[in-house]
Amino acid sequence: MALKFVCVEDYEKHAAKVLPSYALEYYKSGADEEQTLRENRDSFKRWRLMPRMLRGVQNRSMNTTALGFSVSAPFGIAPTAMQRMAHPDGECATAKAAAAHGIVYILSTIATSSIEEIAAAAPNGNNWFQLYIYKDRQATIDLIRRAEKANFKALVVTVDTAVLGRRLVNERHGFDLPAHLKLGNFNNVDEKSDFQTQKKEGSRLAAYASVMFDPSLTWQDITWLKSITKLPIVVKGVLRPDDAELAVQHGVSAIAVSNHGGRQLDGVQATIDALPAIVKQVNGRCEIFLDGGVTRGTDVLKALALGAKMAFFGRPALWGLAHSGEEGVKNIIQLLKTEVDVAMALAGCRSVDEIDSSLVLRQELHSNL
Amino acid sequence: MALKFVCVEDYEKHAAKVLPSYALEYYKSGADEEQTLRENRDSFKRWRLMPRMLRGVQNRSMNTTALGFSVSAPFGIAPTAMQRMAHPDGECATAKAAAAHGIVYILSTIATSSIEEIAAAAPNGNNWFQLYIYKDRQATIDLIRRAEKANFKALVVTVDTAVLGRRLVNERHGFDLPAHLKLGNFNNVDEKSDFQTQKKEGSRLAAYASVMFDPSLTWQDITWLKSITKLPIVVKGVLRPDDAELAVQHGVSAIAVSNHGGRQLDGVQATIDALPAIVKQVNGRCEIFLDGGVTRGTDVLKALALGAKMAFFGRPALWGLAHSGEEGVKNIIQLLKTEVDVAMALAGCRSVDEIDSSLVLRQELHSNL
Amino acid sequence: MALKFVCVEDYEKHAAKVLPSYALEYYKSGADEEQTLRENRDSFKRWRLMPRMLRGVQNRSMNTTALGFSVSAPFGIAPTAMQRMAHPDGECATAKAAAAHGIVYILSTIATSSIEEIAAAAPNGNNWFQLYIYKDRQATIDLIRRAEKANFKALVVTVDTAVLGRRLVNERHGFDLPAHLKLGNFNNVDEKSDFQTQKKEGSRLAAYASVMFDPSLTWQDITWLKSITKLPIVVKGVLRPDDAELAVQHGVSAIAVSNHGGRQLDGVQATIDALPAIVKQVNGRCEIFLDGGVTRGTDVLKALALGAKMAFFGRPALWGLAHSGEEGVKNIIQLLKTEVDVAMALAGCRSVDEIDSSLVLRQELHSNL
Amino acid sequence: MALKFVCVEDYEKHAAKVLPSYALEYYKSGADEEQTLRENRDSFKRWRLMPRMLRGVQNRSMNTTALGFSVSAPFGIAPTAMQRMAHPDGECATAKAAAAHGIVYILSTIATSSIEEIAAAAPNGNNWFQLYIYKDRQATIDLIRRAEKANFKALVVTVDTAVLGRRLVNERHGFDLPAHLKLGNFNNVDEKSDFQTQKKEGSRLAAYASVMFDPSLTWQDITWLKSITKLPIVVKGVLRPDDAELAVQHGVSAIAVSNHGGRQLDGVQATIDALPAIVKQVNGRCEIFLDGGVTRGTDVLKALALGAKMAFFGRPALWGLAHSGEEGVKNIIQLLKTEVDVAMALAGCRSVDEIDSSLVLRQELHSNL
Ligand SMILES: Cc1cc2nc3c(=O)[nH]c(=O)nc-3n(C[C@H](O)[C@H](O)[C@H](O)COP(=O)(O)O)c2cc1C
Ligand SMILES: Cc1cc2nc3c(=O)[nH]c(=O)nc-3n(C[C@H](O)[C@H](O)[C@H](O)COP(=O)(O)O)c2cc1C
Ligand SMILES: Cc1cc2nc3c(=O)[nH]c(=O)nc-3n(C[C@H](O)[C@H](O)[C@H](O)COP(=O)(O)O)c2cc1C
Ligand SMILES: Cc1cc2nc3c(=O)[nH]c(=O)nc-3n(C[C@H](O)[C@H](O)[C@H](O)COP(=O)(O)O)c2cc1C
Repeated sequence: MALKFVCVEDYEKHAAKVLPSYALEYYKSGADEEQTLRENRDSFKRWRLMPRMLRGVQNRSMNTTALGFSVSAPFGIAPTAMQRMAHPDGECATAKAAAAHGIVYILSTIATSSIEEIAAAAPNGNNWFQLYIYKDRQATIDLIRRAEKANFKALVVTVDTAVLGRRLVNERHGFDLPAHLKLGNFNNVDEKSDFQTQKKEGSRLAAYASVMFDPSLTWQDITWLKSITKLPIVVKGVLRPDDAELAVQHGVSAIAVSNHGGRQLDGVQATIDALPAIVKQVNGRCEIFLDGGVTRGTDVLKALALGAKMAFFGRPALWGLAHSGEEGVKNIIQLLKTEVDVAMALAGCRSVDEIDSSLVLRQELHSNL
Repeated sequence: MALKFVCVEDYEKHAAKVLPSYALEYYKSGADEEQTLRENRDSFKRWRLMPRMLRGVQNRSMNTTALGFSVSAPFGIAPTAMQRMAHPDGECATAKAAAAHGIVYILSTIATSSIEEIAAAAPNGNNWFQLYIYKDRQATIDLIRRAEKANFKALVVTVDTAVLGRRLVNERHGFDLPAHLKLGNFNNVDEKSDFQTQKKEGSRLAAYASVMFDPSLTWQDITWLKSITKLPIVVKGVLRPDDAELAVQHGVSAIAVSNHGGRQLDGVQATIDALPAIVKQVNGRCEIFLDGGVTRGTDVLKALALGAKMAFFGRPALWGLAHSGEEGVKNIIQLLKTEVDVAMALAGCRSVDEIDSSLVLRQELHSNL
Repeated sequence: MALKFVCVEDYEKHAAKVLPSYALEYYKSGADEEQTLRENRDSFKRWRLMPRMLRGVQNRSMNTTALGFSVSAPFGIAPTAMQRMAHPDGECATAKAAAAHGIVYILSTIATSSIEEIAAAAPNGNNWFQLYIYKDRQATIDLIRRAEKANFKALVVTVDTAVLGRRLVNERHGFDLPAHLKLGNFNNVDEKSDFQTQKKEGSRLAAYASVMFDPSLTWQDITWLKSITKLPIVVKGVLRPDDAELAVQHGVSAIAVSNHGGRQLDGVQATIDALPAIVKQVNGRCEIFLDGGVTRGTDVLKALALGAKMAFFGRPALWGLAHSGEEGVKNIIQLLKTEVDVAMALAGCRSVDEIDSSLVLRQELHSNL
Repeated sequence: MALKFVCVEDYEKHAAKVLPSYALEYYKSGADEEQTLRENRDSFKRWRLMPRMLRGVQNRSMNTTALGFSVSAPFGIAPTAMQRMAHPDGECATAKAAAAHGIVYILSTIATSSIEEIAAAAPNGNNWFQLYIYKDRQATIDLIRRAEKANFKALVVTVDTAVLGRRLVNERHGFDLPAHLKLGNFNNVDEKSDFQTQKKEGSRLAAYASVMFDPSLTWQDITWLKSITKLPIVVKGVLRPDDAELAVQHGVSAIAVSNHGGRQLDGVQATIDALPAIVKQVNGRCEIFLDGGVTRGTDVLKALALGAKMAFFGRPALWGLAHSGEEGVKNIIQLLKTEVDVAMALAGCRSVDEIDSSLVLRQELHSNL
């Protein structure tokens, strides 16, 4: 009899069995010693829940908005590159699952499906586009125009990737996109061939990023982006309150507190630990999202209690995809919805508005008499 | 030669060997990642004892009162469902052991023995009835009337079960009451058949709880309960000082600080860590009980030092029951009495009144010079 | 080739191999879950050393005084019962080794050698007598008179043994003194037979203690002791500042901060963590000793830096004894002398007077900027 | 296919396979329980990085100065004795690798290559000489004169070695320099034979140090050193702010915060934890270096953020040497340069000047709301 899958870890374990090692290594790894990768998970456990009882929770709703758009849950799918390594349908399957569930889907710049493919697969989806700004600004503008045209609702500008973090397993074994796959957004253009012509030793993706991505970015580039598009802009990868302040001052619609799933600078804080100071600094002037280690309904609850408007998860969608494509991603979403619902019921929250900061307490504070 | 059993863990290990897996899984499990389940035990160890010497402890007594009733020990038996899975005599055996020892026994609503069977088995026992409030209020009132009639001394209203927590092992393997057992308090009525007709996938108990238990409860329902019965009311499952305040304001006789043995919302504080702030808030206006992880005499001592009037244990009684029914539960009670007695002697306490807050210190405070 | 023994752990591992299991279990065990037993060791590691450099440490001396008597090292041998289980020469060998080295030896009341045997074996030793006060006060007085007569220099009154702690391994397997050994101080008297006639189930020593030792002791008994002997009195087993205050007020010459090697009330603080508050309270009005987990020269250094006049060790002497009797104990003492000397040299201390409190820092305080 | 080496640990694991056990034991070990050895690594992980985004990091430079000399990286090679046990070219290979890379190399007094050999091997290197002050002051002066003549740029006076720390594995198995190697700086003089004639039991190096090194050193000897040489003086081994103050007052050019790689007094702080208080005390009056546990680019970043001018590493160079002599050490240096560069890019630092204290945060401070 097939074993029942009852939590995200079940899907992760299954993926570890069925994925080819190059894909698993790429998906799973973090930078250097993977301290931050582990911290992302462990830190959630250092925040204790303080549930309210007898709140009349017969009717519960986790509906909310993100950037003003209605969503059916306070969580969405973070951008992860190269999803076709997990399943032939890749990003299209993920986008369809998200659309079916009414949650946000964020497409990576370096996806193995194109902007247009996503638009075709999930025309009614709440699709957002994650943007890496290329040295070639015209190529960058082209991506934005295509996203606008394909009805993407927001630009998520990733700012933590001046260079690619050192994921040791990829450096050691090498990492390359399998021959039958391509970067969907560049399949007829130079960048594509650029990817394939990078030196193959180590991680070809690291080489690609170093040649193509623009490390000269400053906050002026956010001003520039705002001047060329009407799409709301989310800055992804902020970890310091003073950077959050700069983000607000440069007019972003939201800040995604993220450490890129522990894949960039190892040794940075877990995102759930970085969140409170940023929430305090921003003080409501823009929305705040969080990703990194979110695998449980209670993780979502904690992120919201600490001030996030939305939580995003990256790898769990990959594990769902590896399991059974669109169906697997739907299962993951459904599982998290169930878990958030149970967590809200048991914590005494009828709606996301009722998830306030008194619901969490750092473990170190337990002893206060 | 049979190994001597010298601590609760010995009984637990034995139970793990002799119980059928469906029973062990149900008894042992906590919700989700079982963080709180582990914390309940680990946190006791983070409070250090500060014993007094040379206190003339030749005569010691652990007699005390709970809700005004004399008891022979500052601990009692928490309500746990379906005890006949551990031993054919089930709840009756447990109640008899408690009565023989002069300690409190709390019968679960969803026991496999009925209120009346308990009354017959332990007519002189200090029996309390744990109440789940059903959507069907008449059924709820019937339970209360039967408990009153059967001479139960208190109602313990469990408020942390708006829905059942996700115990993954039960979700994974399914959980059902074996065919030869029934919910004792409903054996001739609709609820019984309801239990059996719940969908069998996953935990049938979770399905049952979701259909029968009332998630719409508010503090008004405590007021309502008080209006229909004279029995003292204990609210079980409070973890926040502000909820404790509400409990006091709604006239409860006692608050049971409990996280349902780590089986409901995972990630909440250990009860021993939640206790101090609640004791401070309540400030003597009602009694405070604690359950969760109590397996040693020193655990009881710590709970009392931090302000609890009584400590309760759930699983240890199940392990005793699995060992040898009434006899096994008696052994467990005797063991804990011995341990509490030794702990009191070594800490310099002649009576429970002498167990004051100076007897415990958080480990973090060791370094205060 | 024989392996070289270079630290106390080497002797402990050796003892674990050569001792009969009943002896090893009795020597090694702590009470209940052995949390305090572990803490005694672990806590030393939580105090960091802060060495001074360039202090001209060519001439170093660890000479000091204890109760006014000159000793060649700031450490001595704590009383441990029944040493003949480790080696036929038992306490006599230990006392001889201590005398040869010019350090304090404390003989247990329930030794397997008599007061007089020790006096004969180590006539020039700095021998102290550890006293359990018996219900039979005349027996107690007899012991004191014999110690006085045998030229013992101090009485160490153990106050943490109102009843014997529950050492589970002894409860489980039983514990009895082997037939060929006897309690040396009672070999012609009733107590001896009392020991042998205690119920044999579980620990016979626990039964003996419960019948013979007086749990009714109060601080008045210290006053009484002072009225009947001129020997300086050390109160052994104090863990709280307020008890230390009482000790001072009752005129003791020294307080031994001790948790009986984790063998009495489990869950109490490590002694090194209990020490600072007691040092602060006593403020020089009597000497303060410490035992529990001392196995390294740096442990001694830390105890002195935190205000102890002397550190004592119990089990390490037993491991030396098990290795080669007097010779083995001498090795242990020499090893610790070498370690203390190296630690003093590297910490910049020429004499024990220079071991001040600035030499240690709690690990939690590392981050203070 | 040969496995790719992508981090220092890869070289360490390789060295553990290829080095003879006497060399591995000597290189790898720390004193006593090796607590400080472990802490040196673990403590870096307790400081979290707080990276800045969007700082225009296309042009990055890790050039800096040490004692006024230009260096190509903010890290250098700490003095480690007897490098010819790792590779026939020993110290010469290390010095050449450092020179080729433009980083500082520090030669140990008790190297297996002489001052003159280093000068010949790396004539353009930024070579510094680590000085042990011998009881024989003329021998000491001779060493200084030879270092001056050989164009060494600084004297690094090690002050934490009044006696040699007890490295248990060396005590246990003995440690001696293999017959074909010699102390390069003493090969025609008495000291050489002294080394060989030390008692062979245990560590011959410990015996040598105890006979030759001068434990009577005080801060006056720093004054004396300054009176006899113009070379800038670095005091290596300071761990306390008050000692740092004395160092400044005695006119040193730099303080090396070091615990000798955990090889001297076990139980002292990790150097990264000792650094902040010393930086605060010194307040810019001299340069501050740090060594101990540096194996990652992020370690260097953290040390600089906390106020060090330079980080040094000892063992990593030995692992590189064991791998392939000069080539291996070059690989190690290149690896660390790459890691520092990536870390600077991801932390938003274009130059070492931009590495400020806001880039690190103690993990305990995460919870500050
Ligand atoms: C395999 C993988 C690929 C990723 N690719 C991108 C990407 O192309 N662009 C981006 O902004 N973030 C990318 N991320 C980071 C995610 O958006 C997100 O920050 C991270 O996965 C969250 O952590 P989680 O995986 O623990 O949920 C990637 C993460 C992973 C695991
Ligand atoms: C198997 C099991 C069944 C339980 N059933 C009930 C129940 O029916 N009603 C209730 O209020 N609490 C129930 N509890 C919670 C206990 O009353 C108590 O809060 C918990 O067991 C205390 O933790 P402990 O098991 O670590 O002692 C149950 C606990 C267990 C382990
Ligand atoms: C086997 C054993 C027997 C002991 N017997 C006595 C005793 O008879 N009287 C007493 O005061 N303490 C006794 N103690 C406690 C010791 O005096 C001392 O407090 C303890 O051993 C210190 O801890 P350590 O063993 O870690 O050094 C005993 C300890 C051990 C391990
Ligand atoms: C094998 C070895 C030999 C050493 N020899 C010396 C030495 O001769 N003189 C000295 O000042 N420090 C010596 N040290 C200490 C180093 O200079 C440095 O403080 C330490 O290695 C830094 O720690 P790391 O090895 O973790 O980088 C030695 C360290 C090692 C590991």
